[in-house]
Amino acid sequence: MTRPFVSLLTDFGLRDMSAAIVRGVVLGIAPDAEVLDITHEVRKYRIRDGALMLWCALPYLPVGIHVAVVDPGVGTARRPLAIRTGRGDTLIGPDNGLLLPAAGRLGGVAAARELAEPAYRLPVITATFHGRDIFAPAAAHLANGVALEALGPAVDPATLVPSPLPEARVAPGRLDAEAVYVDTFGNVKTSALMADLGAALGALAPGAGLRVAMGDGRELALPWSPVFGHVPPGSPMIYADAYDRVCIAVNQGNAAASLGLEEDLSISIRRG
Amino acid sequence: MTRPFVSLLTDFGLRDMSAAIVRGVVLGIAPDAEVLDITHEVRKYRIRDGALMLWCALPYLPVGIHVAVVDPGVGTARRPLAIRTGRGDTLIGPDNGLLLPAAGRLGGVAAARELAEPAYRLPVITATFHGRDIFAPAAAHLANGVALEALGPAVDPATLVPSPLPEARVAPGRLDAEAVYVDTFGNVKTSALMADLGAALGALAPGAGLRVAMGDGRELALPWSPVFGHVPPGSPMIYADAYDRVCIAVNQGNAAASLGLEEDLSISIRRG
Amino acid sequence: MTRPFVSLLTDFGLRDMSAAIVRGVVLGIAPDAEVLDITHEVRKYRIRDGALMLWCALPYLPVGIHVAVVDPGVGTARRPLAIRTGRGDTLIGPDNGLLLPAAGRLGGVAAARELAEPAYRLPVITATFHGRDIFAPAAAHLANGVALEALGPAVDPATLVPSPLPEARVAPGRLDAEAVYVDTFGNVKTSALMADLGAALGALAPGAGLRVAMGDGRELALPWSPVFGHVPPGSPMIYADAYDRVCIAVNQGNAAASLGLEEDLSISIRRG
Repeated sequence: MTRPFVSLLTDFGLRDMSAAIVRGVVLGIAPDAEVLDITHEVRKYRIRDGALMLWCALPYLPVGIHVAVVDPGVGTARRPLAIRTGRGDTLIGPDNGLLLPAAGRLGGVAAARELAEPAYRLPVITATFHGRDIFAPAAAHLANGVALEALGPAVDPATLVPSPLPEARVAPGRLDAEAVYVDTFGNVKTSALMADLGAALGALAPGAGLRVAMGDGRELALPWSPVFGHVPPGSPMIYADAYDRVCIAVNQGNAAASLGLEEDLSISIRRG
Repeated sequence: MTRPFVSLLTDFGLRDMSAAIVRGVVLGIAPDAEVLDITHEVRKYRIRDGALMLWCALPYLPVGIHVAVVDPGVGTARRPLAIRTGRGDTLIGPDNGLLLPAAGRLGGVAAARELAEPAYRLPVITATFHGRDIFAPAAAHLANGVALEALGPAVDPATLVPSPLPEARVAPGRLDAEAVYVDTFGNVKTSALMADLGAALGALAPGAGLRVAMGDGRELALPWSPVFGHVPPGSPMIYADAYDRVCIAVNQGNAAASLGLEEDLSISIRRG
Repeated sequence: MTRPFVSLLTDFGLRDMSAAIVRGVVLGIAPDAEVLDITHEVRKYRIRDGALMLWCALPYLPVGIHVAVVDPGVGTARRPLAIRTGRGDTLIGPDNGLLLPAAGRLGGVAAARELAEPAYRLPVITATFHGRDIFAPAAAHLANGVALEALGPAVDPATLVPSPLPEARVAPGRLDAEAVYVDTFGNVKTSALMADLGAALGALAPGAGLRVAMGDGRELALPWSPVFGHVPPGSPMIYADAYDRVCIAVNQGNAAASLGLEEDLSISIRRG
C-alpha cells in the first residue's frame, strides 16, 4: 500500500526548529506518512513567494495533502483552511491567498472547510504557531483517513482571500507584466505565462529580438532564447521557464544582479 | 509496525555533505528508520543554540532516538554519550551540556552510557567526525533494537557537563534574564519562562505595559501582547512564544535588528 | 524488504522549489523509494564542488541510485548519463565530470548509458530543468527495477568528460597541491590526499612542523595536528579530514577567513 503523501512549505527558516516540529507532529499522528519539504526558506511573510512556489511544485508532486504556512496574520481572525482540489489534493493553510494559485492549477477549489474541530487540533492552541497546533494535526488526521468534512464547517469559496499573484495584461503587440520572483540563480520570473506572450506577440523564433521597457524608465533589448546555452555565458535572454512562465536570465550568471531587476518592477514586452 | 524514529541536529551546515552522511550511515545500518532533520544550521560551535532547539523541538517529536552534534571538543577526551530520558527517548551526542535541557523536558535523565563499544561504532574512528563514526552508528543500532546498556559503561548523571542555558532570576516585582537566541524572524528569545514572569509580576492582561531595562543602559516600554496581530505591523511587543518562553518581537518585523537586541544582553522586566 | 535508495545532490538552492520537485517526481514514480538529500546548496554552477561532495559522501551511503545535477550546460548537446559503478550504484547526471570522482571511489565505471529512452523521461522535456524531466524519472524507474540497459545506448567510458578535481603532485620532500573547497566551518580542503602527503614527506608525528608556501607569495608555518583540540582555540593547523584529505583549519575558528585562503590558491607543503 502506498504511504499517504504530505508536503510542507513554510517561511520558518531552516536554522530554527519550527519546520521540523511541523514534520514531527505529522509523523507523531500519522507515522506512515511520506513527508516532503517543498521549502522552508520562503522569505519571511512573503505570501506571494509561497503561492508561486506551490503553483510551480504541486503539479509535479503526488496527489496528497499539502501544508503551507506563510502566515503574518497568525493568531488573528484569519481562517485556517482545508481546500479540496479538483485533482483530489487537500491544501492546508491560512486564508490569505497563499493556497489559491496552486488550487487553480490542480483543478480548482472543489470544496473548502475551516479547521475548527478541536479533535483534529493539538490540545493547546498557541497564538503564534498554528503550523504546529492546527495545520500539521489536520494534515496528519487527513492522512489517517479522516474525512475533509469532519475538520470543520464549510467555507464558501467565493469568500476566500484572493490570490496574491498578479496576472499579465495582453495588448495588441505588447505584453504588460511585472517581475514577481527572483530565484536563487538570479533568474527573474514575471507574472506572464507563455500563453500571454503568444497572445500578445504571436509565435517567437529562437533568437527573435524583444524590447523590454521597464517601470524605472530603462529599456532592454533581449533575445528570445529557449535554451540557456544558446547565448554566450554572461549574456541576457528571455525564455520560458520549466513551468511555461516568461522569465529573464543571464546564461550562467545572475540576471537580477547584473541587469538591476527587482521584484515588482513593471515590464512591457514588444518585438523590436 | 511503526518505523523506529531518529532525529538529527547538527551545526554541520546544509551546503556541505556531512549531515547527509550522518543520515546515510543511520539508514545503512537501520534501513527501516524514519529519520527527521531538526536542523543542521545551528550556528557553528553554539552549544547553547543547539540545546535550546532540542528543548523546543523534542517534546513535539515522537519518542525516539535523537542525535545532536554541536561538538567543538570532537577528538578530545570529552565523552560520547547516550542518555535515556524519563519519556523513553535516547539522546545521543557529546558530553558538553547540549543534551541536558531537552532531557529535563522529557522526564529527566533516567540513565546514561558512554559510547565505547567498538561493535556499535564504524570500524575506523576519525578525530574530526564522530557524528558519522560514533553517534550515527549508535543511534542506528538502538533503532535496530540493541539495548542501551550494550553501548558502553554507565555514566553517573551527576558527572555530566551541565546545561549551557541560563535561567531567569525572580525578584519582587522584577524578572532578571538575558537574551539567549535570535530566531530567523528576528524574534528574541530570553532565558525566562512564563512561570518566571508570572512569579515576578503576577498575571498580565493583554496590552499591559512593561518596562525592560537592558544591560546596555537603555530602557524599552513594551506592551504585553499574546498575539502578533494585536499590535500594528512594525510595533514591538513582549509575548510568550509557542513554548511558553518570554520573547520580544516586532509584528511582521525583525525585533533584534530594529530594537538593537543582541544575544547575551541582560534584561530586567518590571511593570510600568 | 528494504526500500530502494535514491540520493539527490544539486545546486538548485533550498529557497526555491526545484529540489523538492525532483524528489516529488521520484516519489511519484517510485513511491517506495527512500530519498536522501546530500545537499541542494552546492554553489551555482560549481561542478567541482558537487563532484567533491559526492566523492566524500557516497562511500558512506547505502548502495543505490545517486542523482546529481550541477549542470550549466542544460539544454545543450551535453549527454544525460547513467553510470553503473563497481560497487553496484548507479550515478545519474550530466556528462560534465560531476560524477566521475565518486565513481572512482565506488569501484570505477563499470558501464555507462545515455538517458535517451522516452519511456523513462517525463512526457515533456523542457530546455532548463532536466533534473525534473530526465534525471529524476530515470532514477525512479531504476528504483522500480528497470534495467540500466533499457535507459538508452551504451556510452564508451573513455569519452566521458573528465573529473574537474585536480590531483596533487608529489616531489622529493615537497607536495604541490591547491585549495579546492572551503567548507561551511571555513576549513580548507586541498587536492592532496594523505597518501600523497606520506609519499612526499613520510610519516608525520603529531605536532610536526610544516611550511606551506602559497601561490600568493606568503608562507605559513603550521603544525601537523590530527585533532582540532590539540592546538589552542584560534590556532591554525594542518590535518587529515574524515576522508583522508589534507586540510587546513583553525581550531573553533574559520581558517579561510583568518588565514586569507581562497579556493584555487596553489600550496606547496614541506617539512620545516
